Amino acid sequence: MILLGSTGSIGVNTLNIARKFNLNVEVLVAGRNIELLNQQIKEFKPKRVVIDRSEDLSLVCHSNVSFGEEAILNAIQESSSNTVVNALVGFLGLRPTLKAIECGKKIALANKESLVVAGKFIDQKNLRPIDSEHFGLWYLLQDKKIDSMLITASGGSFRDYPLEKLQNVSIKEALNHPNWSMGNKITIDSATMTNKMFELLEAAWLFNTKKLDAIIETKSLIHALINFKDGSTTAHIANASMQLPIAYAILGHCDEQILKPVDLLEITNLEFRKIESSRYPIWDIKDEILNNPDLGVVLNAANEVAVSKFLTSQIGFMDISKMSLNAINKFHNLKANNIEDIFEIDKQVRDYCDS
Amino acid sequence: MILLGSTGSIGVNTLNIARKFNLNVEVLVAGRNIELLNQQIKEFKPKRVVIDRSEDLSLVCHSNVSFGEEAILNAIQESSSNTVVNALVGFLGLRPTLKAIECGKKIALANKESLVVAGKFIDQKNLRPIDSEHFGLWYLLQDKKIDSMLITASGGSFRDYPLEKLQNVSIKEALNHPNWSMGNKITIDSATMTNKMFELLEAAWLFNTKKLDAIIETKSLIHALINFKDGSTTAHIANASMQLPIAYAILGHCDEQILKPVDLLEITNLEFRKIESSRYPIWDIKDEILNNPDLGVVLNAANEVAVSKFLTSQIGFMDISKMSLNAINKFHNLKANNIEDIFEIDKQVRDYCDS
Repeated sequence: MILLGSTGSIGVNTLNIARKFNLNVEVLVAGRNIELLNQQIKEFKPKRVVIDRSEDLSLVCHSNVSFGEEAILNAIQESSSNTVVNALVGFLGLRPTLKAIECGKKIALANKESLVVAGKFIDQKNLRPIDSEHFGLWYLLQDKKIDSMLITASGGSFRDYPLEKLQNVSIKEALNHPNWSMGNKITIDSATMTNKMFELLEAAWLFNTKKLDAIIETKSLIHALINFKDGSTTAHIANASMQLPIAYAILGHCDEQILKPVDLLEITNLEFRKIESSRYPIWDIKDEILNNPDLGVVLNAANEVAVSKFLTSQIGFMDISKMSLNAINKFHNLKANNIEDIFEIDKQVRDYCDS
Repeated sequence: MILLGSTGSIGVNTLNIARKFNLNVEVLVAGRNIELLNQQIKEFKPKRVVIDRSEDLSLVCHSNVSFGEEAILNAIQESSSNTVVNALVGFLGLRPTLKAIECGKKIALANKESLVVAGKFIDQKNLRPIDSEHFGLWYLLQDKKIDSMLITASGGSFRDYPLEKLQNVSIKEALNHPNWSMGNKITIDSATMTNKMFELLEAAWLFNTKKLDAIIETKSLIHALINFKDGSTTAHIANASMQLPIAYAILGHCDEQILKPVDLLEITNLEFRKIESSRYPIWDIKDEILNNPDLGVVLNAANEVAVSKFLTSQIGFMDISKMSLNAINKFHNLKANNIEDIFEIDKQVRDYCDS
């Protein structure tokens, strides 16, 4: 496989699966965690390595190492592997997804932004999502008439925080996810509920429906539910680990134990809450976004700029959603007619938010 | 269809489905609620009616009415309907099940005792269970490797009652189920957890596995769960109404709304508890029963006698389980070699418990 983003949490879990099932890793693509990358190189012996910055090249223990976006695209193009695991963060995961599609490769997609910003231009034939919620939905699908789908949210770092103090939370507090540890960007997106909005958009593309909603399940054990026409609901329950969705996305099917099953007697109870827009202002535009998925690229660009400004102490926490809502308000009429428009809109929105 | 037990809660729900889908009701079999039976006759116009007692014959508004077990068996034999809904209570449901199998009819089986006492002699080819738990398991089955199955219990009338006062509860208290209203026998069986033991045995026959267990889910919204080899669990969630299992058992498939879906935001939380044998002494022999399902007929006979004695104030509540445990202890070595043995053992155990 070609693994994009090998040192992040999805990347590390992907390599756990590769180890367990003795899968070949042809290309490793990583950012700036060169120490971990070197350990991965030693164990998995990839043919080729790509990193983020030229100044780190000399630190990488490999004879075939290059850097930057073009190098990633070339590595995909020139590799003989059939599977690309795309665990890059943000908009910059889009071009590698497009390249992998162009090359006819199977894509295990953890880069949700690819669908959020350009779903209508993504051929899903060879695509398998890596996201517990979408995996849960897929897992539940049977030949019964579906009414609607529901994914769950943890509620993020501030689900129990006093509302009036939200604007002045520290970066450290924002990065302290209640249920697990992930990369910085997605942890902030989880705290603002923007991540769940992305996942609804992603689900809309994957399952071709707009009858979608999300609720908070505080323990993150139920990941997805399907309401069937007959009035039944089915739920997918699993301990929170990405290894299960990854195993299915890569292997297609899996009959071996990947996770310890959930013990409900240990859990004792589950709690469900509404996603309130007082705490998560972005939730106000849920219907607008689902009804006009062209706005995905706008929301994503504004949010990437805002999260980056928050993480460098330029704006407060509640300003993140404010910036996204402003951008949606400003650009709500736009239409993307081809994939090049996506890159153009992304740039326009970033310029607007930066100014 | 031929409906056995038309005036009980399963029977009434079956007629709701018959009304909704405009199904023909050829035979109605009922007990002593002649008033309700006459209303059903008026609406569904069956060709033939069978009741329990000869002294009620003149009260029934129908030209072709008979009484007793032989009449039920004849009605099955002579009917042209393909489907028998068996919602009779207790051991006396067994012969009609055997007759329906003999006649090659499809059986929608709510009489769980048929499987509990004689599972190994029951041909399941044309059998569909009517029980929310088994319906839930069936609904969840997909082409994935199953590890184990779990059904849920409400915990019954006394799940929160002081343990030391259990022996002296009144009949009225015992019949006050926390989550719904059912017939007397099953309500008592639910309070002693004997009903759940029956359901585990039933599931063992239906799904050909002994990796089965039960837990208490206090709201009775999750009915069944399946643990898969990969570590995933799936759950079947529905409001507690028998109409859904009945619709599937009769229609085979159903894409119309039968129930209002569960709204988790209204529910707000779910609670899981262990089934403790201090409260439910019958749970002590769960493994023994599952490993030796021949004991089903013993447990059922002892329990039928005990429940009947409790409902006529001859014994206290905790004596019900005691009588069943005694009988299991006395008869634990027996083996049924053919269906006639079942009727013989049933009689022996009843004689033992009556003395």
